[in-house]
Amino acid sequence: MSATPSGTAEQAVLVTEVGLRDGLQSIARTMSTAAKLQWLDTVYGAGVRSMEVASYVPPRLLPQMADADAVVERALQLPGLTVTVLVPNAKGAERALAAGAHRIVAPLSVSEAHSQANVRRSRDAMVDTLREICALRDASGKPARIIGGLSTAFGCTLQGEVPIADVVEYASRALQAGADTVALADTTGLATPALVDATLQAVRAAVGERCNAVHFHDTRGMALANTLVALRHGIREFDASLGGIGGCPHAPGASGNVAAEDLVFMLESMGLSTGIDVRALIDARSVITDALPGESLFGSIARAGVPSYYRAACADVANISGAAAAMESV
Amino acid sequence: MSATPSGTAEQAVLVTEVGLRDGLQSIARTMSTAAKLQWLDTVYGAGVRSMEVASYVPPRLLPQMADADAVVERALQLPGLTVTVLVPNAKGAERALAAGAHRIVAPLSVSEAHSQANVRRSRDAMVDTLREICALRDASGKPARIIGGLSTAFGCTLQGEVPIADVVEYASRALQAGADTVALADTTGLATPALVDATLQAVRAAVGERCNAVHFHDTRGMALANTLVALRHGIREFDASLGGIGGCPHAPGASGNVAAEDLVFMLESMGLSTGIDVRALIDARSVITDALPGESLFGSIARAGVPSYYRAACADVANISGAAAAMESV
Repeated sequence: MSATPSGTAEQAVLVTEVGLRDGLQSIARTMSTAAKLQWLDTVYGAGVRSMEVASYVPPRLLPQMADADAVVERALQLPGLTVTVLVPNAKGAERALAAGAHRIVAPLSVSEAHSQANVRRSRDAMVDTLREICALRDASGKPARIIGGLSTAFGCTLQGEVPIADVVEYASRALQAGADTVALADTTGLATPALVDATLQAVRAAVGERCNAVHFHDTRGMALANTLVALRHGIREFDASLGGIGGCPHAPGASGNVAAEDLVFMLESMGLSTGIDVRALIDARSVITDALPGESLFGSIARAGVPSYYRAACADVANISGAAAAMESV
Repeated sequence: MSATPSGTAEQAVLVTEVGLRDGLQSIARTMSTAAKLQWLDTVYGAGVRSMEVASYVPPRLLPQMADADAVVERALQLPGLTVTVLVPNAKGAERALAAGAHRIVAPLSVSEAHSQANVRRSRDAMVDTLREICALRDASGKPARIIGGLSTAFGCTLQGEVPIADVVEYASRALQAGADTVALADTTGLATPALVDATLQAVRAAVGERCNAVHFHDTRGMALANTLVALRHGIREFDASLGGIGGCPHAPGASGNVAAEDLVFMLESMGLSTGIDVRALIDARSVITDALPGESLFGSIARAGVPSYYRAACADVANISGAAAAMESV
């Protein structure tokens, strides 16, 4: 487990808003490009500086992502925004590199059953694909960072339990194949605090700080509790989606990605700096409901409201215990 | 901060199901006595061995609790069930003692504004009431334990911030007045992990293990994260309500008490023993929906489902990291 942070700079936490990719690809309706660009601008205006904005997948498979180039192009115009795309194969990587995306997530299911169901390829074949993507990046001369996105790292609805040893193995293999870092994804919302603890303990022991990010779903209400555990292991990068969109297809009505608003509220309340204005982020939810009327949004803080004295309270808590102490406590 | 537990016996956590009291008193409709008795039996059947079952308040103020005697009588017939009631004044205490309740919660708002709004009396007057209740208990010769229930211990929607120094002061005064223990209640769902950390740090430093319980609301989705922090401070007693009923009147549609099903799922997944079968508890929700059709229930695990391999996974995690290690991590 890494040391708790101290000093100002290290109290920053990176929240990557992934709704344009992981949220919209789970929704049958296709959001217009204009609405996606408004989403980008609005969320950026709330202070978000890292977004996963599209998948480079064949439009016949995922028509929701057919405008990936246009969305990436606009995202790259927003100063200081780190632009991430998801890429499942070499062809997608070529498009992402040509577009100039800053970061590429290459997914790799730790569950063999999920890998077959999701991409019709084995885990091992996906390691080869990741190697190919990394080689393309190297040959391109582009500085894009490649993230091995380890899906189903905390359990799989198809396979059941996913052994921690498998997570360690595929994290190591993703890095050996050329990924700069790996992220652990709770694709099906099965992570629990003790499982996150045991998994991060093992993976960080094996690969250290190159496992630096997590992607939690809130399907079973555990995302924020799991976040506390991840913080304690030194993780400082978290995915979340506006309005918590991105439902799990295996649990109708259940939420998927943790709502960015809830995550930001909790992190800021701990004295950790996300750079994001939670009230503006809550307002940004209207981008989704305006463009996709009737779509279910999730998250508690938007419903219950930000306490009127939120900022003052955060400052007080930070004064009392300090972010480092708060981290130590979680 | 108290030591983390080790050994089998100390890995037990007490979940007190408070829906019959804190849940039903927030709902305008009155549940029939027959349905309440079914609730008792069903939740008991799921393994719950601690329940807060009624308030002894004037029926004209809270008609939902007019049958408190009948409910307490039945609850006391269930072998091994610890029966708790809420009592705001001496008259209620006399009824509770006559009925033979095992535990009496005497509420005491840390926020002066909440105290005035809720019971039209000052905090200091409520300390006097608590002293009176304790004297009645002592004079009765009954073994009932008295819990000072510190409302708005983590913030107040009327007053705003509640200083931690006030929580420490009123915890100490409640104990000096004769309470056996004190519980900290997040009455308005304003607690956050760092605030829970700082508050428990201060209160436990002042009164030690006599502050042994928390009552978290999930209004802003923080209840489970806050629970992890409380566990780390050595707290082993948690309130929760079936179906998460008990909404906050200040946030329509927002949930109140953390759903007992979610809390039990998380605790058991950490290898902590609650004695409660989470699947049976989920089934028990139908007691509420049958008796109060259309009533909103809350909680994630009932909606998303318990993973099929839940038990095995829990055992695995317990083997890998042990409950003590899991606790250390949160």
